[in-house]
Amino acid sequence: MENCIFCKIVKGEIPAHKIYEDKDTLAFLDISPVNIGHVLVIPKEHHANIFEIPEKALLEVVRTVKKVSHAVKKGLKADGINVTMNNEPAAGQVVFHLHIHIIPRTINDGFHHWKGKRGYQEGEKEIVTEKISKSL
Amino acid sequence: MENCIFCKIVKGEIPAHKIYEDKDTLAFLDISPVNIGHVLVIPKEHHANIFEIPEKALLEVVRTVKKVSHAVKKGLKADGINVTMNNEPAAGQVVFHLHIHIIPRTINDGFHHWKGKRGYQEGEKEIVTEKISKSL
Repeated sequence: MENCIFCKIVKGEIPAHKIYEDKDTLAFLDISPVNIGHVLVIPKEHHANIFEIPEKALLEVVRTVKKVSHAVKKGLKADGINVTMNNEPAAGQVVFHLHIHIIPRTINDGFHHWKGKRGYQEGEKEIVTEKISKSL
Repeated sequence: MENCIFCKIVKGEIPAHKIYEDKDTLAFLDISPVNIGHVLVIPKEHHANIFEIPEKALLEVVRTVKKVSHAVKKGLKADGINVTMNNEPAAGQVVFHLHIHIIPRTINDGFHHWKGKRGYQEGEKEIVTEKISKSL
């Protein structure tokens, strides 16, 4: 897609520190890392997010995520890995070409996870379960 | 696996608000939600994390994640979705049965994303790229 920065990386029009590449996917360093060694995995074809990508293409991306996660852990001696995907601006997506983050973590690296803002009220779980289940 | 809370949910020994179930996977409400409608997707077989699960089993989980993400967005009128997976205690994993979080988001819901602690130093990207690539 024109003016998509990740499509330009795929085409080699913008440089990137490539980690892994195959027919369908590409992995490269995030230029604005949460931790050193933060990698992005993308489909080479342009798909905006989890809602728009065909299942088959998403599974190819996840295959690469698994492969690269092992390498990040081993290569950087990480203690753990967060795998995250933000879909739509409300979820923090900034580049609208689907990408999965692989973030290496070390014990006591100082990052804090999101905390829940509130628990469920009486009867709310049942309502939420039904709303989601009916939309399947 | 004995004493695994998610295995007990699979076997019906602990109750859960089930959203979706198929032969290989199960989706249910997180009892300690980041946002209302926070769903966990797990493989029915016990696998600890992304490093230990066979690729095929992980892809089945991701198939369910995609299906349920659509339903969470539609059913709860969410503006976006975060999909996350924490692997190993250093990454915030607490239950050692692989699970993928689906977190519905709304515009201006007040959550903040992790920020990078520091950027790369001169030459560091090349070193990190090589360390990871050599471990593939």
